[in-house]
Amino acid sequence: MIIALDAMGGDFAPATTVEGAIGALSEDRDISLVLVGDEPAIRVELEKKKYSGSQITIKHASQVVEMDDSPLTAIRRKKDSSIKIAIDLVKSGSADAIVSMGNSGVVMATALLVLGKLPGVERPAIAAVMPSLRDHFVLIDAGANVDCKPVHLHQFAVMGKAYARYIFNIDNPKIGLLGIGEEDAKGNELTRESFKLLKSSDMSFIGNIEGKDVFEGEADVVVCDGFVGNIALKIAEGLAETMSKMLKREILDRSTGKLGAFFLKDALKSFKKKTDYTEYGGAPLLGLSSPCIMGHGRSTAKAIKNAIMVAGTFHSKGILNIISKEINEGITRRARVAVEE
Amino acid sequence: MIIALDAMGGDFAPATTVEGAIGALSEDRDISLVLVGDEPAIRVELEKKKYSGSQITIKHASQVVEMDDSPLTAIRRKKDSSIKIAIDLVKSGSADAIVSMGNSGVVMATALLVLGKLPGVERPAIAAVMPSLRDHFVLIDAGANVDCKPVHLHQFAVMGKAYARYIFNIDNPKIGLLGIGEEDAKGNELTRESFKLLKSSDMSFIGNIEGKDVFEGEADVVVCDGFVGNIALKIAEGLAETMSKMLKREILDRSTGKLGAFFLKDALKSFKKKTDYTEYGGAPLLGLSSPCIMGHGRSTAKAIKNAIMVAGTFHSKGILNIISKEINEGITRRARVAVEE
Repeated sequence: MIIALDAMGGDFAPATTVEGAIGALSEDRDISLVLVGDEPAIRVELEKKKYSGSQITIKHASQVVEMDDSPLTAIRRKKDSSIKIAIDLVKSGSADAIVSMGNSGVVMATALLVLGKLPGVERPAIAAVMPSLRDHFVLIDAGANVDCKPVHLHQFAVMGKAYARYIFNIDNPKIGLLGIGEEDAKGNELTRESFKLLKSSDMSFIGNIEGKDVFEGEADVVVCDGFVGNIALKIAEGLAETMSKMLKREILDRSTGKLGAFFLKDALKSFKKKTDYTEYGGAPLLGLSSPCIMGHGRSTAKAIKNAIMVAGTFHSKGILNIISKEINEGITRRARVAVEE
Repeated sequence: MIIALDAMGGDFAPATTVEGAIGALSEDRDISLVLVGDEPAIRVELEKKKYSGSQITIKHASQVVEMDDSPLTAIRRKKDSSIKIAIDLVKSGSADAIVSMGNSGVVMATALLVLGKLPGVERPAIAAVMPSLRDHFVLIDAGANVDCKPVHLHQFAVMGKAYARYIFNIDNPKIGLLGIGEEDAKGNELTRESFKLLKSSDMSFIGNIEGKDVFEGEADVVVCDGFVGNIALKIAEGLAETMSKMLKREILDRSTGKLGAFFLKDALKSFKKKTDYTEYGGAPLLGLSSPCIMGHGRSTAKAIKNAIMVAGTFHSKGILNIISKEINEGITRRARVAVEE
């Protein structure tokens, strides 16, 4: 399969994107990559890393979308950007999936415009992975849709379930609805109505789940609207960084601290790894007609490699077809229930 | 001044409430306390702690609200609960403020019913304190109102500002609106409209603030609706606990870990203290006609002592009068703007 990689996306691109691409090839020989971006710059990085294989090709793009470009500006004025060209490759059938660590607002808007949605999907949503005491869980929607209806949250659950099932190999993923109390009737207007929809579905719905409990790992998929999801994701990211900084400051403030940190080096490293979002690679924008994996601008080469592997799995397992089928079955079932009522 | 303390509120009450009460008296000689609850049990605790002063009196209550009682059940069937009696003491003028670590849903509903709102306040809101790299910030509303209008968020800002100013002594508190992007136009319907209201106010409004940035401490007051605020608070609480558990596990998993932890003991303790919500005492329900401070069920005696001190400051500085005045000035100003438009 062929994956289009936005080689200019991310704070340290194209060094990290090229390194991530080479890393992915060493793990999966069935992948071919088209690196889209500034050809000379990409070539320099490939030479630095002594890559001479044929699985990586380059597609030149003369423009780069900056992190502060608005979707509108980018779509209008940067028609030759690495993001746009990479997405066009998927549209024309020259690639099967796209991976970008660039401006996520621009990636989302362009992918939606060019690739379109899967039949039946009302709103594509971002599935982010967060760590739990058991392993990790999927948070969906992590920021694509700010104002949602219950039917959207139901679809997010279906898409998140497919992600947990086929990427994390969880047989029957448990779905939780992010809320402010465990009782059925607690929540806001949106979650109270969404609760009923999810309860009547044939998914393993475990009910409302509170913010403090998501990290226990009871739910494999945590569903919410994109405004709440983005705040939850960013609060967690911000707090994890703040706690690391505070701990570091405490250690450096004390004479015994440095000695302690020396003995704790491995533990601190392993801890950092578990709470570090870059370990989980990218976040797919689920519900588009082709796989589209986005990622943090600060993504390391390893995170980019992981995102490429996820894109490959999406394509090889036909996860989008499964999502489309389940969404449409859900719509048929709801229509039947409505008629019977 | 006289503070009514729900002596039965909290997982370890009345041991923790009595200890917290005695602690508060040793810090502020102007406080008198009425401990409301099971008189014999409270008396046992007072004797254990060898308290024989006259600043603590006991008011017997024959019932206790459990953590899983619904507000409706409690109000109907537990008319002689420690929560109800404590709030009645404030209503009748026998006490100036109430502190409870009990069922917060019941405290909120009962206080609203019995004490009523400050003139001009549309919705009382919970102000929670969270740690930042600078010091701490106020999150309002942390869970009282799930579906809000822009005018509510504007009032939350006014109330949060008074809290930051008079409890944390910040001269001109900076107000941020919790959102998903820094640009003015980003957010959901509610925050986009609230942004305009806050921008036109005379507060130091610094604009939208993202979840990952709140811990940097740029804003002294972070405003949001109660659904989002509760999720943000609980996500932060859950992640802080999870990270502590993960770190502990990493330390115990390694032979050098325990040695490292020994040298790091003070640093870890100080770190825990900074990220421990109990250090900040309770969270006031702002906008009621009298001070009402609530707190976590797991509150320690120290957290309870701090909550009592906050209740005392609310009364002695007349913070509620200030809030009422500012809210009503805001309403007048908005009416004037509306007429002029």
